[in-house]
Amino acid sequence: MYNFEISKKDSSTSARTGVITTAHGKVKTPAFMPVATLGTVKSITPEELEELGFSMIISNAYHLYLRPGHKEIKSLGGLHKFMNWKNSIATDSGGYQVLSLSKKRKIKEDGIVFQSHLDGSEHFLTPKLSIEIQEHVGSDIMMCLDECPPYSDDYKSIDKSLELTTRWAKLCKESRTRDDNALFGIVQGGVFTDLRKKSAEQLMEIDFDGYSIGGLGIGEDPEKTHDLIDHTAALLPQDKTRYAMGIGNPIDIVRAAAGGVDLFDCVIPTRNARNGTLFTNTGKLVIKNAQFTNDSDPIDKDCGCYTCKNYSRAYVRHLYICKEILAIRLLTMHNLNFFGNLMKSIRSSLEDGNFFKLIKKYESMEVN
Amino acid sequence: MYNFEISKKDSSTSARTGVITTAHGKVKTPAFMPVATLGTVKSITPEELEELGFSMIISNAYHLYLRPGHKEIKSLGGLHKFMNWKNSIATDSGGYQVLSLSKKRKIKEDGIVFQSHLDGSEHFLTPKLSIEIQEHVGSDIMMCLDECPPYSDDYKSIDKSLELTTRWAKLCKESRTRDDNALFGIVQGGVFTDLRKKSAEQLMEIDFDGYSIGGLGIGEDPEKTHDLIDHTAALLPQDKTRYAMGIGNPIDIVRAAAGGVDLFDCVIPTRNARNGTLFTNTGKLVIKNAQFTNDSDPIDKDCGCYTCKNYSRAYVRHLYICKEILAIRLLTMHNLNFFGNLMKSIRSSLEDGNFFKLIKKYESMEVN
Repeated sequence: MYNFEISKKDSSTSARTGVITTAHGKVKTPAFMPVATLGTVKSITPEELEELGFSMIISNAYHLYLRPGHKEIKSLGGLHKFMNWKNSIATDSGGYQVLSLSKKRKIKEDGIVFQSHLDGSEHFLTPKLSIEIQEHVGSDIMMCLDECPPYSDDYKSIDKSLELTTRWAKLCKESRTRDDNALFGIVQGGVFTDLRKKSAEQLMEIDFDGYSIGGLGIGEDPEKTHDLIDHTAALLPQDKTRYAMGIGNPIDIVRAAAGGVDLFDCVIPTRNARNGTLFTNTGKLVIKNAQFTNDSDPIDKDCGCYTCKNYSRAYVRHLYICKEILAIRLLTMHNLNFFGNLMKSIRSSLEDGNFFKLIKKYESMEVN
Repeated sequence: MYNFEISKKDSSTSARTGVITTAHGKVKTPAFMPVATLGTVKSITPEELEELGFSMIISNAYHLYLRPGHKEIKSLGGLHKFMNWKNSIATDSGGYQVLSLSKKRKIKEDGIVFQSHLDGSEHFLTPKLSIEIQEHVGSDIMMCLDECPPYSDDYKSIDKSLELTTRWAKLCKESRTRDDNALFGIVQGGVFTDLRKKSAEQLMEIDFDGYSIGGLGIGEDPEKTHDLIDHTAALLPQDKTRYAMGIGNPIDIVRAAAGGVDLFDCVIPTRNARNGTLFTNTGKLVIKNAQFTNDSDPIDKDCGCYTCKNYSRAYVRHLYICKEILAIRLLTMHNLNFFGNLMKSIRSSLEDGNFFKLIKKYESMEVN
């Protein structure tokens, strides 16, 4: 089962609130999905994720196929049971990861031949296999296998690539054997607005449960990203879920929500935490800096997360400098809490009609 | 304040239950102290430690002196506040760590000149400085600075060394400026029973709040360790706390408790967890082994820890193989729970008069 209901549309922007219903519960949108590449949001338990306000995470077909294997996960009762996560799970198709992680890969009409980044073993990822992986793990929202070319590719290459993505999307839809989840098409087309339109139209012709905006945030100018998300979101059906893949920084999320995007995922909160970079209401904070050595304040005075309620900057800096695992936990909790609060404030400001103020607030914040 | 009351003495062994009272609460003995070298039990929060049944941890003067510095900790309100641990904290004096970690060190009459293992900077650890460090961090049970020579040293060297440890112990006692905590003398004497006796008698002459048995579990034959703990514990005053430093494996703890030891600490549960070696009621389990790839059972069917209640061997193996941080958390929780339960069962079997059965049980278990 999959359902998406719009609750409220903003009067001054294209933003909307809504509710996604999957076989594993409801997800209020706009929503951010923490990244659980290998079946774990790094350092955090599922109970902690729930407490932080998240009701959907995103995992990855490429990674789970290689480790531990989608058949193994199926035999163990599916990914929800495997990782002890009772709420919704989306999965990326693996297309982007094959192209970014595998040293040797060849794109063919039928799929992608690639060498594992782990052991060099050869594999062939087809649209059918991608769906098989995602169905085996029990994904609630699957992605079609797509080709995600470098943003700097020329018009002709991008055009050719999106046509392949469309043909794969059709094969993905035809490969489905389950009807208890959703399948999203991924709009490609690089930085070319007419190709974005062509891709969106071709995918809408096939008809999907929702549409992802792919191939952005991969090196192109951030203003361009913003414009292309707006442009692409406007092309998509009003009543279907829209997902901006890999976006992004707080202001990127706020702007994309204004453009009518419902779903987000990004490694930024979790990866930045592991690198010691923290989001606060007064800007970014690099915890290793010597200025925090004797700082008894919490990371963010206005933050109510477990870390800020119980620990000083001096302590988390000490843990970080000493490479203590608890540092990663505490910093990840804090950043995820920031993103959880960001999404709550986007939703509540939309409900209250104050979304425009929120945009202004994040535009002036130095966390982007 | 420091108080130790014996609750019950075993009829067939020298074991006893008791209660330590510090300024930070009560500790039921025999007790195990998880190791928080740098002001954190690796990967675990203070709340989790409490839930696992621990009411005292042990930190380290050498490490805290180097990072973040005892003066910094004092200025931040002491170690309890710094690390958000409301219960008792013991500290080792740093003598053992200086001698085991520092590449260049020279033992003098007044103390130990050493180079930091972190940056090569030169320091001079005296009995007075060791007490200053431990008082600054706010330790509830401090240790005297001791020299811990290699177990293989000859009789004459060990004799000379224990005499120095005695002189340092006297200086440590004289250096105290606080009376809200305890100071333990550390009995040395290597593998020589008469030197153990001499060391114990010299320290008892000075009179301490409790006595530690040091210089064991550092390479000597485990049977020898056991005999020497029994021998040394029997020399110490009945009404004072006895602490076997760095001991150890479950059976070592059970045996030492039978010899009348009240306190234990060891890196075994936490370090083994990080190495993927788990304690179970049916023996040790090496989680990386391929046999667990598809194993849907918990690590230990008879274990009620968070990890065993929620995750399969297959999942924790997957996390471990992928070097995921959550693996360390889950495995550390499990092993600490095993040690927490071990101590609870030692205490309850002593209260119920079944301690002899418990010894038999652990002697036959393959977890040692």
